[in-house]
Amino acid sequence: MNDRIRPNVRCLSAYIPGEQPDDPQVIKLNTNENPYPPAPAVGHLLKSVDAASLRLYPDPVCRELRAAIALVHGCAVDQVFCGNGSDEILQLCLRAFCPDRGRVGYFDPSYSLYPVLAAAADKPVAPLPLADDFTVPAIPEEYDVPVFYWTNPNAPTSLGAPLAQVTEYADRSRGVIVLDEAYVDFAAEQGGEWAWTRPNVLVCRTFSKSYALAGIRLGYALGHPDVIAALFKVKDAYNIDRLTQMLGQAAMEDQAYLRKIVARITATRDRVASALRLRGYTVASSQTNFLWIQPPTGRSAPDCFATWRAQGVLVRYFPGPRTAQHLRVTIGTDEQMDFFLQVAE
Amino acid sequence: MNDRIRPNVRCLSAYIPGEQPDDPQVIKLNTNENPYPPAPAVGHLLKSVDAASLRLYPDPVCRELRAAIALVHGCAVDQVFCGNGSDEILQLCLRAFCPDRGRVGYFDPSYSLYPVLAAAADKPVAPLPLADDFTVPAIPEEYDVPVFYWTNPNAPTSLGAPLAQVTEYADRSRGVIVLDEAYVDFAAEQGGEWAWTRPNVLVCRTFSKSYALAGIRLGYALGHPDVIAALFKVKDAYNIDRLTQMLGQAAMEDQAYLRKIVARITATRDRVASALRLRGYTVASSQTNFLWIQPPTGRSAPDCFATWRAQGVLVRYFPGPRTAQHLRVTIGTDEQMDFFLQVAE
Repeated sequence: MNDRIRPNVRCLSAYIPGEQPDDPQVIKLNTNENPYPPAPAVGHLLKSVDAASLRLYPDPVCRELRAAIALVHGCAVDQVFCGNGSDEILQLCLRAFCPDRGRVGYFDPSYSLYPVLAAAADKPVAPLPLADDFTVPAIPEEYDVPVFYWTNPNAPTSLGAPLAQVTEYADRSRGVIVLDEAYVDFAAEQGGEWAWTRPNVLVCRTFSKSYALAGIRLGYALGHPDVIAALFKVKDAYNIDRLTQMLGQAAMEDQAYLRKIVARITATRDRVASALRLRGYTVASSQTNFLWIQPPTGRSAPDCFATWRAQGVLVRYFPGPRTAQHLRVTIGTDEQMDFFLQVAE
Repeated sequence: MNDRIRPNVRCLSAYIPGEQPDDPQVIKLNTNENPYPPAPAVGHLLKSVDAASLRLYPDPVCRELRAAIALVHGCAVDQVFCGNGSDEILQLCLRAFCPDRGRVGYFDPSYSLYPVLAAAADKPVAPLPLADDFTVPAIPEEYDVPVFYWTNPNAPTSLGAPLAQVTEYADRSRGVIVLDEAYVDFAAEQGGEWAWTRPNVLVCRTFSKSYALAGIRLGYALGHPDVIAALFKVKDAYNIDRLTQMLGQAAMEDQAYLRKIVARITATRDRVASALRLRGYTVASSQTNFLWIQPPTGRSAPDCFATWRAQGVLVRYFPGPRTAQHLRVTIGTDEQMDFFLQVAE
């Protein structure tokens, strides 16, 4: 049998998503979900949906949803693409922009999905190591790739890179820079408006973090109409279902609610970061809804992970040379984080 | 800009979905949707969903949904894969099973998505022409491809091929046969149980037709655990959202309702087919929820399409040498089809 499966797939290790524990008592700080519910209109809409409408295909090009997104961002509708989670968009970028044997670039460490996407598409990778303090280094003159995934702010390191660094690389690259801004709503510097009219930068956003809608699978990309048109050509015909389109639109239209829960999360984040520093943890200056922390001398990250887990707090540990001394801790509610601080003495 | 987009994508013509008219008065017989609502439990569940749960990621491997599907089909859970519509599964098959430059096979005419999937993945195609009467011809001895999409019953022709023809090709092919059974619930011969343990046949099913859930985007594949495992490796991490998993499971668990609406549709189909034949239309022996018809001598298919459309009935017309004399007419409610029969004098 095996010889019918492509060799790159046979030896592929699939992306490992953060654990989804069955026990609802576990405090889940491991997948950067939002601890607050989505905008109230989402719940109201769900109650009012006519189930009979689900017999019909969804709008294949998400016209109303894209119009709502364009309105918020002040761009044209043909500069907006919607994906089944931003993961789908990241994957489509390889299909649209990366030639056979073209190298896929990203920082190391960064979102661990990127090398999996490259392997599934049978493309070689060209990771760029971050500096020892996890900041973005000067990108070597000779470095260029057809697709570069630039997560900004970065995960799992929580740090933002100055936009000047992004623009400098974008100015000289002959490839496409996919600016993955999954966490940008939690950042001080507000992302890539500058990029939307560049011919080689695609900005990716998601409803999974700041909009508290990881469960509906919705991401979007903003960019030059040519780049957006290429994504439309390679997507599946009906990639976003009816409910997701409707609920995503409702969430997008409530920017006041978004600002409210984002402010709450960033306040909690900064409070928890200070408390951890007082206890001897090294905590990166987070621009996201999570903290990237190193335990005090004498305590290892895997030990902390196991101890906290035994006490009902699940955080994320990434094995590997660059990440094994750290833990990634999603910001939950104040109550959850108070309990976390008790556990993380 | 254009030189950053892959050449195969630059010249790609995207798949053209059937029109989704804004006017709710139009009788929509153009995309093979089910005229009846989904199972009652779908509506009840929608009303009871806690919107706050949408802040969490869905189960990445759809455990409960796949268990429900496995129970109905009497197979193991590791023989079931779920996709964002069966379209996603069809696409993933190329990623998992088709080598670089490997040819993609399918019948002509068949589902018009297949050549688009091949072009987006930059693979050459090797279509096999159907006979003049749209039946499946003997497949030439020397014909073999890494991925062959075999729609059975076929669209847009509505005809089923005898399973013996499928098994004969499967027995000798070194590739994977993707048996697309989107319409099999409407057929007299009940599909591919024989195939699920074969190492090189993947059976694809969908919730879009018989289950009346085109709007939630859900398809599934049944096959050998090795083949299923390969699909899991190349899929996006969270490809099916929470609501779709939940609603699909509810629909799958109501097989009595499925049988009821399928019986209603096939009865309407056979009645309309007889009426059209009496009026001089040539009507294929449909094994699906649509009819493949050729107007009486002296009337062209595009003319009928335009005339009917002007009277508020939208059917599907496929230009092209093999299909331009025919129309595809989805089976609606009895009331809708009575109106159609008035219009299609």
